[in-house]
Amino acid sequence: MSKKYCYFFGAGQTEGRAALKDILGGKGANLAEMARLKLPVPPGFTISTELCRLYYQNKMRFPAKLRKEFFDYVKKLEKAAGKKFGDPTNPLLVSVRSGAKFSMPGMMDTILNVGLNDQTVAALAKLTNQPDFAYDCYRRLMMMFSDVVLDIKEAKPLGMAEGSNQDRVDKLKQLVQEKTGRPFPQDPLEQLTMARDAVFQSWHSPRARIYRQQYRISESLGTAVNIQLMVFGNLGLSSATGVGFTRNPATGEKKFYGEYLTNAQGEDVVAGTRTPQPIDQLADEIPQPYQQLRSITDRLEKHYRDVQDFEFTIENNKLYMLQTRTGKRTGYAALRIAFDMVKEKLITPKEALLRVEPDHLNQLLHPIFDQTAKKNARLLAKGLNASPGAAAGQAVFTAEDAVAEAHKGKRVLLVRKETSPNDVEGMIKARGVLTATGGMTSHAAVVGRQMGKSCVVGCSAIKVNEEKGEFSVGNLTVKQGDYISIDGTTGEVFLGDIKTADSEIMQVIKGTMKPEQSLLYQQFTKLLDWADKVRRLGVEANADIPSDAEMAIKFGAEGIGLCRTEHMFFAPDRLPIMQEMILATTEESRRRSLAKLLPLQKQDFTELFEIMRGYPVTIRTIDPPLHEFLPKREELMVEIAILKTKHSIDNEPQITEKERLLARVNELHEFNPMMGHRGCRLGITYPEITEMQARAIMEAACLVAKKGKKVSPEIMIPLVGHINEMKHQKEIVIKVAEEVMKEQGVKIKYKIGTMIEIPRAAVTADEIAREAEFFSFGTNDLTQMTFGYSRDDSAKFSRHYIEHKILPEDPFVSIDEEGVGQLMKICAEKGRRSRPDIRIGICGEHGGEPASIHFCHKIGLDYVSASPFRVPLARLAAAQAVLQKK
Amino acid sequence: MSKKYCYFFGAGQTEGRAALKDILGGKGANLAEMARLKLPVPPGFTISTELCRLYYQNKMRFPAKLRKEFFDYVKKLEKAAGKKFGDPTNPLLVSVRSGAKFSMPGMMDTILNVGLNDQTVAALAKLTNQPDFAYDCYRRLMMMFSDVVLDIKEAKPLGMAEGSNQDRVDKLKQLVQEKTGRPFPQDPLEQLTMARDAVFQSWHSPRARIYRQQYRISESLGTAVNIQLMVFGNLGLSSATGVGFTRNPATGEKKFYGEYLTNAQGEDVVAGTRTPQPIDQLADEIPQPYQQLRSITDRLEKHYRDVQDFEFTIENNKLYMLQTRTGKRTGYAALRIAFDMVKEKLITPKEALLRVEPDHLNQLLHPIFDQTAKKNARLLAKGLNASPGAAAGQAVFTAEDAVAEAHKGKRVLLVRKETSPNDVEGMIKARGVLTATGGMTSHAAVVGRQMGKSCVVGCSAIKVNEEKGEFSVGNLTVKQGDYISIDGTTGEVFLGDIKTADSEIMQVIKGTMKPEQSLLYQQFTKLLDWADKVRRLGVEANADIPSDAEMAIKFGAEGIGLCRTEHMFFAPDRLPIMQEMILATTEESRRRSLAKLLPLQKQDFTELFEIMRGYPVTIRTIDPPLHEFLPKREELMVEIAILKTKHSIDNEPQITEKERLLARVNELHEFNPMMGHRGCRLGITYPEITEMQARAIMEAACLVAKKGKKVSPEIMIPLVGHINEMKHQKEIVIKVAEEVMKEQGVKIKYKIGTMIEIPRAAVTADEIAREAEFFSFGTNDLTQMTFGYSRDDSAKFSRHYIEHKILPEDPFVSIDEEGVGQLMKICAEKGRRSRPDIRIGICGEHGGEPASIHFCHKIGLDYVSASPFRVPLARLAAAQAVLQKK
Repeated sequence: MSKKYCYFFGAGQTEGRAALKDILGGKGANLAEMARLKLPVPPGFTISTELCRLYYQNKMRFPAKLRKEFFDYVKKLEKAAGKKFGDPTNPLLVSVRSGAKFSMPGMMDTILNVGLNDQTVAALAKLTNQPDFAYDCYRRLMMMFSDVVLDIKEAKPLGMAEGSNQDRVDKLKQLVQEKTGRPFPQDPLEQLTMARDAVFQSWHSPRARIYRQQYRISESLGTAVNIQLMVFGNLGLSSATGVGFTRNPATGEKKFYGEYLTNAQGEDVVAGTRTPQPIDQLADEIPQPYQQLRSITDRLEKHYRDVQDFEFTIENNKLYMLQTRTGKRTGYAALRIAFDMVKEKLITPKEALLRVEPDHLNQLLHPIFDQTAKKNARLLAKGLNASPGAAAGQAVFTAEDAVAEAHKGKRVLLVRKETSPNDVEGMIKARGVLTATGGMTSHAAVVGRQMGKSCVVGCSAIKVNEEKGEFSVGNLTVKQGDYISIDGTTGEVFLGDIKTADSEIMQVIKGTMKPEQSLLYQQFTKLLDWADKVRRLGVEANADIPSDAEMAIKFGAEGIGLCRTEHMFFAPDRLPIMQEMILATTEESRRRSLAKLLPLQKQDFTELFEIMRGYPVTIRTIDPPLHEFLPKREELMVEIAILKTKHSIDNEPQITEKERLLARVNELHEFNPMMGHRGCRLGITYPEITEMQARAIMEAACLVAKKGKKVSPEIMIPLVGHINEMKHQKEIVIKVAEEVMKEQGVKIKYKIGTMIEIPRAAVTADEIAREAEFFSFGTNDLTQMTFGYSRDDSAKFSRHYIEHKILPEDPFVSIDEEGVGQLMKICAEKGRRSRPDIRIGICGEHGGEPASIHFCHKIGLDYVSASPFRVPLARLAAAQAVLQKK
Repeated sequence: MSKKYCYFFGAGQTEGRAALKDILGGKGANLAEMARLKLPVPPGFTISTELCRLYYQNKMRFPAKLRKEFFDYVKKLEKAAGKKFGDPTNPLLVSVRSGAKFSMPGMMDTILNVGLNDQTVAALAKLTNQPDFAYDCYRRLMMMFSDVVLDIKEAKPLGMAEGSNQDRVDKLKQLVQEKTGRPFPQDPLEQLTMARDAVFQSWHSPRARIYRQQYRISESLGTAVNIQLMVFGNLGLSSATGVGFTRNPATGEKKFYGEYLTNAQGEDVVAGTRTPQPIDQLADEIPQPYQQLRSITDRLEKHYRDVQDFEFTIENNKLYMLQTRTGKRTGYAALRIAFDMVKEKLITPKEALLRVEPDHLNQLLHPIFDQTAKKNARLLAKGLNASPGAAAGQAVFTAEDAVAEAHKGKRVLLVRKETSPNDVEGMIKARGVLTATGGMTSHAAVVGRQMGKSCVVGCSAIKVNEEKGEFSVGNLTVKQGDYISIDGTTGEVFLGDIKTADSEIMQVIKGTMKPEQSLLYQQFTKLLDWADKVRRLGVEANADIPSDAEMAIKFGAEGIGLCRTEHMFFAPDRLPIMQEMILATTEESRRRSLAKLLPLQKQDFTELFEIMRGYPVTIRTIDPPLHEFLPKREELMVEIAILKTKHSIDNEPQITEKERLLARVNELHEFNPMMGHRGCRLGITYPEITEMQARAIMEAACLVAKKGKKVSPEIMIPLVGHINEMKHQKEIVIKVAEEVMKEQGVKIKYKIGTMIEIPRAAVTADEIAREAEFFSFGTNDLTQMTFGYSRDDSAKFSRHYIEHKILPEDPFVSIDEEGVGQLMKICAEKGRRSRPDIRIGICGEHGGEPASIHFCHKIGLDYVSASPFRVPLARLAAAQAVLQKK
């Protein structure tokens, strides 16, 4: 195998190009591309990412053949630069920089001024006639080299301490001698190879790993290393260095944007030790290179057809381009830039769809904190950023208090150890939710996202005492009624009341702003219209109540993919009836309670059908275990124990009553409720519940149909694992549906299908598809069972797992393609084999997550269903899945 | 399709044969076989089981073409019998009997004397010159017909009421007229077709369904119907009817065995209204037919090469054979018969292996009740027969009491709502265990079976009050110290102290009887030796402690397939250290506690290695969630609440202490512990635990190896779902193992593998096999996750599921081949693809269940591991899997 590892750029000998990002990294590929465009790029060469991989595979050793190639390129560089390493009169100085395929700003190491030693520093002093400049360069080299290559932590502070540059150099030399037992390496080539290796190694630094984890960058990519002729922005007032964007990355405004420092090296701009100037001023200070920069960056934007984020240096009035890359941007900017570029005919609408990230759209929906107010507020703790957006209000500690205080017109923030379905009313009334435990798919997180409610979970630094109505962080105690603020986008928790506001798009959606007033909204909907024309996946919404459904329609949902009927049972007017039903000891009395619930459910469904105007409405029969509707077992036990200890005759009726309740709660108690008596297991042991729900659905559908409106009810049986469960429930639904349609004298098309959330259902999908007319992957439960991770408990180890790279990422956030995804594929294939026209979708939380949406597209699902607020994101991601596949 | 539905037998025109059981049912096939052997079988014909299936598939209608075929066969029968239906002088009378492939004694219906009406009864009276006999026959027909065909419940009592047979006939006629509005059908052919259809329908009677469920007979088999010329055992003193066995079915003794009644019809023998005579007496009473019967049944036994269970009738000194089939037998009998027949050269040893059911061997191991004492005892309730055997003792309600009372020398029976690992000590000391909740794989059941301890679980009729130390059944209350007895073979619970004894084989195993004193034991071991020569599957044992391992070796285990190390942590001298380790807040203090556990664990493993003499010893690292080792959360909460309510200064230190404990218990609390922080997740978050365990194992192994003994430690990582988990734990084990071997100066071969109990592990087995050197299916957990059934909770619906045929059987009892089994197959294939020599076995409870063992053989596993008491059963089942496959 005769592989090439080094790629030259500049001096008319460029070997790489932009398309070679995989092997040259982003920086190297773009340097090569700029060199090809004949832009002023200091010459140099890039050592490929391939070598980084080999280096690690090969126990930190480079292939033997690299040595020759490397020194050949060093020679080539010396020739192109017209300078030599170690030359006592005209020494070659280079920078050694990392450059991975995906930008990882500040995560890896850079060493500048490599080639300086006691001899060449004198030459530099002489050449530039600026001895202090030369020693400044030497100092910087020694600081960076000692820190990065020699791992001497004291080097940086020492190099920045008081004193002349020469003094600092001397002190640094001494430090190196002390710490390593050897003098600072004087051989430029030794410096160079050591620097090169250190930069390769920085790929695996802890901070780089963590960054990659967070941004889902593969560990196996590796970094390239760029060795490039130094140019100096610190040669005086006609020298400068700066960074910039071709358009404003925060707003998207088409305006040259950036900052610079005269007489400085690049790191000074980043380090914040001096305050940089707005780039416009460069036009006055060093006009000619500024004009050249404008014209070069214009050309780069046209060439790359996207906003460029660039770095430059001016050395004695001469401009050098050191970097260009696609500029990162906020959601606001992304949308505006995409539209502007389409207008400018720089890109097509299809390309515009790829220029906005799905998560960008989310940013546009969530309320935001006033940035100054946030900066001044006291940060208390940081949890998981479960549901984005900003929220502030008075802390309350129970759902009841949330409802009561909100009723008084107060803004409240619900703080709980964890939430349960009992808290849903309180969550609706609260501005935001903060929990001490739970992960990204804990109850609070899931419901928070569905409601589009700001939510921080798993904030373990706060100790919640719900009884006392307070929480503490360190020594600070926050009591009921104290104001706190949470930023669900970052996971931050603040003391005090930070101002928030609806985002512009939400103002239009809520009707407080007219669409024609909002360019952003118009662009938002236009982009999604384009997406709709491209995507193959249908996009539906998970919505339980009419207001959710209305929101879903406004966001462009094409149906309800999941309506959880049990949420309806937690409403305050219904919970007592539900409890009465559960406490019933005979089928007859159970039926009496169900009869009371029937008209209420029917009313819900009627509204949903009307709002959804003929789109499919997929209604899931009751799913959670019945004990969720009753008081908590341990609380009852404690209450009874206290009453008994107080020992008074007056208590006795109360004790008897509570003991009766506890007896039933004990009967229903489960060790592992997630795998207990729930889902269709309830409908099978209590067929009368399924009967009531089927009747409510069909009566509602008939009612709406009689008004001449279209209805498409789809009845979904949860937690099916065996075909006989599906058969059993389907028979009940059909029997009731036929009865109702006969009573009402209307014929309605309806479908009966199932959730796929049990591994057994996935592997026996061919069987189940014989009965089910549609499948909807409940990937929350499927992930639970496939991994054996309780989503309520897994936070205890899953954070550790991700930090320690046992898992690449949280499988409750993005579908685990290898395991859960494999079951999904098996299921879809088997299901289609026995029922070719079966409709298959997903209604788990993953349905609103871009990578998972791509996966659903890839395995040929028919639709995704996400919470209403994630519908726009899903429409875009579905379109991108089509475009990126091509 | 021109199918044949009817098959004639007798009169030299026999169409069927024994091999056609599938379509003729057992009775029909054997009648045909006997007819072929020219034995005296009354002629008749069999309508095939195929028709039963068609009848049900086709909405209770027979195929049109049956009609002609049926009446052709009726004519054929008339001709063969020389009689005609409805003939006023010589009428044909027939019996109509069911006959499925597998015998279902008494579960389906029979109608005798079909063909009698007001006219033919007179003819019969005249022919036999016995009018009362004729009316007795008519009465019996009317009784059975009214009951079975016309569904008139009152017919039977009325037909048996006082009065002459003629009176009873008149009353029955009146009853039929009243209830159906029509007279009793007089047309013999109408009687015949109605009777035929009713017998087909009886296949789906509730009792027949339940029976099939219990004995795992497929619903789809259907029954055949046999229509046969009546012969009469009730024609006087030279007539008789009887049943018998060619050998004693209880003891296996080679002695003609049976009973008969003179002047009776078959039902009289079964009904118990008259006491039958031992069959020997028939030799005196009706000698010639008796001798013929002896010679025929001898011939039948030789022909079928197995014990025959037969029915006969003697009509006026003439013998007729009405049925022959393989005789059911007890375990004791099965073993003896198998050996006797080998000795008689009737069968080969391989065939003998198929003549003993695996469960028979189990019967031989468990203690038994004195049968008379049991009959006289008061039956309290019935639960699930979780672990066979008889046990009696004084009821105790906590593990502590069990230990304390047993220590005083008392026999105790532990009664609990449910058991937990905390109860294990108590279970060891108790004679048997009775729980109110839980299913066949609940903690009590699993541990009970493993210990070979009699255990009845899920006995919901008893209400246990552990605090008060009593349980109630209806109005009866059983208090601590009262004697109760449980029969784990039947699930029965009795009041009082029923005598029990060790079985003969257990006496030999325990050394209280010498092997040479026990023929049974010799046969038992001989049979298993034969099995060992035939089987391909290895058989190992699940054993945690030395005494289990010793038992396993005595039962022929070839290794320990699962040693659960956590059981060791529950021992009273270790639990406090374990708790100290859990309550530790730093790694350092955790390590201190672990260091105390190390020598204890090492000691355990040393003993195990010595006992197992070089056989593989598979040791699983810690598996259960840590909170299992701490007090129960709700109990702590109640204690604290009570202390606080009492409100005294003296309490405060106690409250503080308990609150500290509660805080940690709360931290560890999980909503779904089965899917929580357990298994390798513990070893990954607390690597020091795995380190300690690996060290204990390897130090023990080195110690034994240094004594010159062979050791084969296999370290098994539980609950792996992702290859990285396996990698992580494997690295630790290897590091420690190499360290220890270096320290000890010994080299030992050891293996590192994993349980396969997470669906994700099964579908990514190719990945995992890259690291794991062996797989062991943990089918308890795998079934839990694949179905989403918590085994601690699923009893709530799974019994309903099985009763209502949602599930064919409890997947925790026998492997669900379609779902769980499919994952196992995928796993084994993928695992072998990436590591061809990977050793794959099973150590879940299913490893000791015959059908599951067959499945493991079928999919090519290498071994099964079962509780020591099930090792013999597994050895036999593994051999049968080979023999039955051929």
